[in-house]
Amino acid sequence: MIVVRVMAGGRDLAIVPSMETPDETTTPATGIAAQDWTAASADPQYRAAVVDLLGALAYGELAAFERLAEDAKLAPTLEDKAELAAMAAAEFHHFERLRDRLTEIGESANKAMQPFGAALDEFHRQTAPSDWLEGLVKAYVGDSIASDFYREVAARLDTDTRTLVLAVLDDTGHATFAVEKVRAAIEAEPRVGGRLALWARRLMGEALSQAQRVVADRDALSTMLVGGVADGFDLAEVGRMFSRITEAHTKRMAALGLAA
Amino acid sequence: MIVVRVMAGGRDLAIVPSMETPDETTTPATGIAAQDWTAASADPQYRAAVVDLLGALAYGELAAFERLAEDAKLAPTLEDKAELAAMAAAEFHHFERLRDRLTEIGESANKAMQPFGAALDEFHRQTAPSDWLEGLVKAYVGDSIASDFYREVAARLDTDTRTLVLAVLDDTGHATFAVEKVRAAIEAEPRVGGRLALWARRLMGEALSQAQRVVADRDALSTMLVGGVADGFDLAEVGRMFSRITEAHTKRMAALGLAA
Repeated sequence: MIVVRVMAGGRDLAIVPSMETPDETTTPATGIAAQDWTAASADPQYRAAVVDLLGALAYGELAAFERLAEDAKLAPTLEDKAELAAMAAAEFHHFERLRDRLTEIGESANKAMQPFGAALDEFHRQTAPSDWLEGLVKAYVGDSIASDFYREVAARLDTDTRTLVLAVLDDTGHATFAVEKVRAAIEAEPRVGGRLALWARRLMGEALSQAQRVVADRDALSTMLVGGVADGFDLAEVGRMFSRITEAHTKRMAALGLAA
Repeated sequence: MIVVRVMAGGRDLAIVPSMETPDETTTPATGIAAQDWTAASADPQYRAAVVDLLGALAYGELAAFERLAEDAKLAPTLEDKAELAAMAAAEFHHFERLRDRLTEIGESANKAMQPFGAALDEFHRQTAPSDWLEGLVKAYVGDSIASDFYREVAARLDTDTRTLVLAVLDDTGHATFAVEKVRAAIEAEPRVGGRLALWARRLMGEALSQAQRVVADRDALSTMLVGGVADGFDLAEVGRMFSRITEAHTKRMAALGLAA
C-alpha cells in the first residue's frame, strides 16, 4: 500500500492510504470535458480553477526555465550544455503560451502565478542538483511528474483549455537525451545507480509534498481536481491521483535502471 | 585622444593611441565582401577566420543565454523576470543558428567554440551584476558592444556569412526594455546614475580587454579584422575599430543618462 501524506505549510493534514477505494468510476462526470471555454467558463468556480491551473503551470514553466539554465552550467561538454539550454528555451516558450492565454481571457498572468511561487521555489531549493547526472535525472523526473499531473487534470478540462495544456506538455524529445545519458553513466559505473535512485526518490517525495501543499491551499483548483464535487475536498480522490503518478514514476525509474 | 590597451593573458601588449591615423580608407579592399561563401571559402585562411568568428559568436550567445537566465533571478517582478528570460531564449536561438551553420559547412561547432570559452567566461566572471539594475545595464551594454563589434566585422565578410551574422544581431526590441527601466530608476533616484555609470565603464573596460585578448590569440580572426593584411596584425587598425566601438558606447551611455 502506498501512503500519501497531505501537507500544508509543513503540517500534516492527513495520511491517505491511497489504494483503499477500488473504484475510480465513482468520480461524477461533470460534463465540462465536453464543453468549450466559452460555455464552461460561465461557471465562476470553474473559471477560477482554470486561472489557478494556468497560473501554476506558467510559473512552473518559468521556474523550470531558470533551473534548467542553471543546471546547464554543470554540463561536462558544450554539446550537453546546449542540450539543457534547449530544454530551458522550450520551457520558456511554453510559459509564453500560457501567459498569452491568461491575457487573452482577461486575467493578469502575474496575479495568477503568484500563489504558486512559494511551493515551486521551495521545490527547486530543496532539490538543487549537486552534479550533472543529478541535474539530468531531475530534468527527466520533474518533467515526467509534471506531465503526468497535468495530463490527469487535462481530462477534466474544457476542450480549449485541454488543447492548450496538452500542447505545452507535448514531449519535445528532450527526455530521450536525459535517459540515454543517465543509462550510459550507470552502465559505465553501476554504483552511480544507487545514488541516483535515492536522488529520484527524494525528487518524487519533494514534488508530492509541494503539490499537495498547493492542492490544500487552493480550493478552486482542488475542487476541480476531484471532479467538481460541490462540497469541497475529497482527499481520497486526490490520494488516488497521486498514487497513479507515483506508480508511473516507479515504472519509469525501473526502465532507467533505477529502483525507485 | 582615446587610448586603447591591447592585452593578452593579463599582460599589456601595446598602448595604441587610437586616433592617430586619420584616414580609414587605407584599409585595403579585399573583394571578399562581394563574394559568396563558396567563392570566398576557397581561401583556407578566410575559411579559418570565419570558423573562428562563428565559433566566438556562438559561444558568446550561449554564454549570454546562461548569464541572462541567471540575472533573471534578480528581477523584482515576475514580468521583469519573464522579459529577461525572453532575452535569454532569443540568445539561445541565435546560438542554434550559428551552431547549425557551422555544422552545415562541415565544422564541429564545439571545436570552433572552444578557443573562446576562457575569454568569455572570464568576462562574465568579472562582471557578475550585484543587483537587477546592474544586470539590465549589462544586458544592454553587452548586447550593444557585441553588436557593434560584429557589425564592424560583418562588413568584411562574404555575402552568406554576413547575412547570417546580421540576422543573429538583429535587434529583438529587448534593448528598449532595459533602457526604459534604467531611465526610470535614475529619474526616481538620481544618485543611482553615478553607480551605474561606473558599472558601465567597468563593463566596457572588461569587454575590451577580453576582446583584445581574443584578437591577440587568434591569428586568422585578427588578420580578417584588419582587412586581410597578409603580414599579420595591424594594431593601429584594431585600435581604430575599438575606438569606434568605444565612441558609440559613450553616446549610448549619455543617451541613457549615464556619463560613460
